[in-house]
Amino acid sequence: MNPDIMKERQTATFDVERLTNILDGGPEKTKRRREIESLVLSDPDFQDEDPNFLSRSERYDQAVKKSAQMILKIREHGISDPEEIYCYKNMFRGNHQEAMGLHYAMFIPTLYNLCDPQQSRKWLPLAKSYEIVGTYAQTEMGHGTHLRGLETTATYDPATQEFVLNTPTISSIKWWPGGLGKTSNHAMVLAQLYTQGNCHGLHAFITPIRDLITHLPLPGIVVGDIGPKFGFSEVDNGYLKLDNVRIPRENMLMKYAKVEPDGTYVKPPSDKLTYGTMVFIRSIIVGHSAEALAKSCTIAIRYSAVRHQSEIRLGEPEPQILDYQTQQHKLFPLLATTYAFNFIAQYMNHTYKCINQDINNGDFSQLPELHALSAGLKAFTSWAANTGIEVCRMACGGHGYSCSSALPGIYVEFTPSCTYEGENTVMMLQTARYLVKSYRQAKAGQQLSGMVSYLNEAEHRVQPQPVAARPTVVNINDLASLVQVYKLRAAMLVELAAKSIQQELQRRRSQEDAWNHSAIDLVRASDAHCHYVVVKVFTDKLGEISDTAIHSVMSTLALLYALHGIAENSGDFLQAGLLSGPQVLQISVRIKELLSLLRPNAVALVDAFDFHDKKLNSILGRYDGNVYEHMFEWARQSPLNTTEVHESFYKYLKPLRSQL
Amino acid sequence: MNPDIMKERQTATFDVERLTNILDGGPEKTKRRREIESLVLSDPDFQDEDPNFLSRSERYDQAVKKSAQMILKIREHGISDPEEIYCYKNMFRGNHQEAMGLHYAMFIPTLYNLCDPQQSRKWLPLAKSYEIVGTYAQTEMGHGTHLRGLETTATYDPATQEFVLNTPTISSIKWWPGGLGKTSNHAMVLAQLYTQGNCHGLHAFITPIRDLITHLPLPGIVVGDIGPKFGFSEVDNGYLKLDNVRIPRENMLMKYAKVEPDGTYVKPPSDKLTYGTMVFIRSIIVGHSAEALAKSCTIAIRYSAVRHQSEIRLGEPEPQILDYQTQQHKLFPLLATTYAFNFIAQYMNHTYKCINQDINNGDFSQLPELHALSAGLKAFTSWAANTGIEVCRMACGGHGYSCSSALPGIYVEFTPSCTYEGENTVMMLQTARYLVKSYRQAKAGQQLSGMVSYLNEAEHRVQPQPVAARPTVVNINDLASLVQVYKLRAAMLVELAAKSIQQELQRRRSQEDAWNHSAIDLVRASDAHCHYVVVKVFTDKLGEISDTAIHSVMSTLALLYALHGIAENSGDFLQAGLLSGPQVLQISVRIKELLSLLRPNAVALVDAFDFHDKKLNSILGRYDGNVYEHMFEWARQSPLNTTEVHESFYKYLKPLRSQL
Repeated sequence: MNPDIMKERQTATFDVERLTNILDGGPEKTKRRREIESLVLSDPDFQDEDPNFLSRSERYDQAVKKSAQMILKIREHGISDPEEIYCYKNMFRGNHQEAMGLHYAMFIPTLYNLCDPQQSRKWLPLAKSYEIVGTYAQTEMGHGTHLRGLETTATYDPATQEFVLNTPTISSIKWWPGGLGKTSNHAMVLAQLYTQGNCHGLHAFITPIRDLITHLPLPGIVVGDIGPKFGFSEVDNGYLKLDNVRIPRENMLMKYAKVEPDGTYVKPPSDKLTYGTMVFIRSIIVGHSAEALAKSCTIAIRYSAVRHQSEIRLGEPEPQILDYQTQQHKLFPLLATTYAFNFIAQYMNHTYKCINQDINNGDFSQLPELHALSAGLKAFTSWAANTGIEVCRMACGGHGYSCSSALPGIYVEFTPSCTYEGENTVMMLQTARYLVKSYRQAKAGQQLSGMVSYLNEAEHRVQPQPVAARPTVVNINDLASLVQVYKLRAAMLVELAAKSIQQELQRRRSQEDAWNHSAIDLVRASDAHCHYVVVKVFTDKLGEISDTAIHSVMSTLALLYALHGIAENSGDFLQAGLLSGPQVLQISVRIKELLSLLRPNAVALVDAFDFHDKKLNSILGRYDGNVYEHMFEWARQSPLNTTEVHESFYKYLKPLRSQL
Repeated sequence: MNPDIMKERQTATFDVERLTNILDGGPEKTKRRREIESLVLSDPDFQDEDPNFLSRSERYDQAVKKSAQMILKIREHGISDPEEIYCYKNMFRGNHQEAMGLHYAMFIPTLYNLCDPQQSRKWLPLAKSYEIVGTYAQTEMGHGTHLRGLETTATYDPATQEFVLNTPTISSIKWWPGGLGKTSNHAMVLAQLYTQGNCHGLHAFITPIRDLITHLPLPGIVVGDIGPKFGFSEVDNGYLKLDNVRIPRENMLMKYAKVEPDGTYVKPPSDKLTYGTMVFIRSIIVGHSAEALAKSCTIAIRYSAVRHQSEIRLGEPEPQILDYQTQQHKLFPLLATTYAFNFIAQYMNHTYKCINQDINNGDFSQLPELHALSAGLKAFTSWAANTGIEVCRMACGGHGYSCSSALPGIYVEFTPSCTYEGENTVMMLQTARYLVKSYRQAKAGQQLSGMVSYLNEAEHRVQPQPVAARPTVVNINDLASLVQVYKLRAAMLVELAAKSIQQELQRRRSQEDAWNHSAIDLVRASDAHCHYVVVKVFTDKLGEISDTAIHSVMSTLALLYALHGIAENSGDFLQAGLLSGPQVLQISVRIKELLSLLRPNAVALVDAFDFHDKKLNSILGRYDGNVYEHMFEWARQSPLNTTEVHESFYKYLKPLRSQL
């Protein structure tokens, strides 16, 4: 063990294991997680070559191999709980993607959700036995988030009782689905349904794309890989061109909507049912944001404890870089954010489960708010994590650029979260739509419930005005008081956005144009609302922590999270008159004190995330801090080092001399 | 030509060619640049395989081949002016790196700067004929920016008149130098010089590392590639371990410092001479920031003009995504930033040339300010570009993740600028040191000159205080008035930082600790100072533009740059009482108007950067806007598509079925 990092662990003021338990949701959960992880660790098949050293085709090959291995091993170990399967896979595949990810995440769930009983009996066994491997083909080259814009058609032919599938234009070619390029033999194709001359919108069609035996593309199908990307190197995101591809009528998923043999279309009863799935997926992304940030902070903080650089005092040994205030200011607010996002992920998961029970009892009342909030939180957390990972990487200096640090990999694997499952700006605007609607309801005297209820109480209080004119009763050391100012800031920004729409309408713009001309304000309002929710949930969480030592350090983190957020957005708070100039100044002084206060606990706070070295797979982030010797060992395995002299010397450098 | 993008070009209110001339520095320069670019374009050797489809070893191979080709072609074409050579290479190598980059950028310049006449006669011809290919080996595994911390030793042995070179610890292994791993046969090794029992600090030693004929590593040398990184895939950044490597006394560069045959050390006269080189390199990085942002904006804005998505008005066709206010708010401030950075790069280049003349006349007086400013501007522009590239990439939705967009490549090639040639936070603190020194001089009654002279005039004016107590005479539509508020903000933040140091000293901290405990404030002060300089230089530049149409659109961009900067940092301006809450509100309304005003010129403003399609190498950024057909064509070349069925199907997927 590196002596610097050993010393760091001795300065911790709390029991790391107990904090790990809180993050896992109890000591039993920690125990079970470690059991599952040790199944992977003790497995010789887990010791694979570092994918950083492989070509893309080799990485894909490795991913398919791992996917196949995992299927067999999970059965062998008898793991059946979805969370435990997730945990096993997460460990086994490391920081990388699963080759058949969409088969589990989208293809099979869609079968579950949209098959009628007969279809379930046919397709589910095939999908579960990997006779068919499927993907979910929605996005087209020219169309993303906006479902009405999709161009792929499925036209019913009653003569043969078949659907005829076409991608009629180049922009309608299906593009991006994971596993579509090479792995899948079936695709769940989302297409505009035409029957009896009418279009009935988007429906899902099980479409065979490759022969079950030969795996060759079927007639009318052009399918392949879309080429190298930023990250996801081991995934064959694909394209799919359909040219008069005929599939039986029964391949349209018919649990809700139906097409009768004669072509008669039967409408589905409602489409609110998809809300639940969306909330679930978004809460998973919030969890991913927390996890990606947790990994990045672990790497950057441990490395900052063993790296020595420059000098604070002339002539003294180079200090640990974690002693620089600027380094603390980069990393500790991100550490606080990581905890905040962990707790918000727990909160969403819990709320989702509660509301799901309500839904099963026929009570949909709370779903719209959670649906709207989940959109904003997906965007809020993934943007913050996206930026934060890069801050951590750059805080590691040159070595942060090496793939041995794992940080480049973490970034490129995470950043798509800002775009997939709803582009973040679109997500923020979705939340804003709910906020503006709620604001108008409050204005109309309706009593709101849930996280937006502040729009009732605060409605008349928030107006941009000079600080001097308002009482400032904020206690910057009291979290309850800070939750209050975050709330008032959100209220002010929702009101500003609503007023902007109002003004645009008064200029005789249409509703839609007024909305678009207020979009910047709307995104800002959503952002402030989410920020308030995160601060509030973090603060509420403190009430659940009984261990005094942990309560103390978590309170410091929560305070840092809240104050740092104010410092970064101080204009909002000053503009609303929620804080005075001198208070903002006090806050920046207080932040510096909190950084010093957290310094002795920094390493322990990342240790509590409990990433096994094999999972983190980062030389800079090693638990033992023995960074340099392992970096050298890793570098020597670089494929460029397999020969002492690279062939390019003989081909170009040697001949060059004689040509000059 | 795509009809949408054609229409965009018709709405432009100015002559694109004239703006290109302004950016190039005159119509003659534009003409010559295009001549050089067309030499490359018409060259069949330029049509290489897309490196995105190659393995790392193949990319390295391609880069060495290109380097060798360029050497011959530049001689053939008789290009000798350094700027023209840069232009040729920039076109030939595309968005990628040169295999022998450090040979030109560091090895040969060091020979020029530090060889005595005899050494010059020996080494320069060898280096220029590529008998020897060199790199610059300074950074060690455990040591970066802080030169005193480097551990490599060169101990003089008078018995044999040789230096004995050693990397005595694992952390002293030379790490990162480009071209060190496989390409170079010599390294300029920076080592602590020991002679007659004393250490005399860092000196440069020409060290042979590979045999000139066989290219095999020499005895005592362990050299290789440090492995895959975030970007720079075609560069063999290397490691170098030295074990009692002996080199002749004459291999120490002896223009200034010397070691006599008997081991007597002769001190160099001064070390201020290196300032000039640093300023020059940093001004180049500022130019790179502008170029990387210009490429990213070109891609994102052209694509946003041809991409249609979602709906503003129900039932109408999907609008161009450039019509969304949120999209404009992401891209247009970055477009303004690109112009701002272009002009600041021009300014630095010009100032450097002027000051260089002064230096040749023995006048060093202006060098310290430029040196300090160049550090801050390097950090300020590279951070902004780093973030901005990613904003552009994510503004392109899913397709921004594809390597065909070029955006992932632009990011990973650019981001190291934040770390190399001086880590950005360290750079900001360097500027801060100058600012605090100047502040103290002003306080002591000294009259300052140059960009910091505001510390005289503003010294007594800036104090955080309630808005109501101060007159607010800012005209938010007048650039001169905005330059003034940026100046006062910088003055306030310099004063705050200086006062923080003062307070820490009063708490009996040492100077050094007081500095470290104020580092956050110091970085903020530097940032504000740089921001002021950029706004001022942009505003000054407007005075040089005589074309009315261009003057008008550039004024709009400058205003957007200034107001957006205020909106993003409104807390500072409110806190200092420089603006009132209602003014900040007016500014956000005004920004929205400016976005609409710029909308018709957006495509023309990126066209003016005049990137040839072959240089941009981005399918999303194509001049003709024909994005989708070319994306499909590109994807089909993906190496995963060379076979219809990937071997992993036979190896893993097919056997899996029988095992279940």
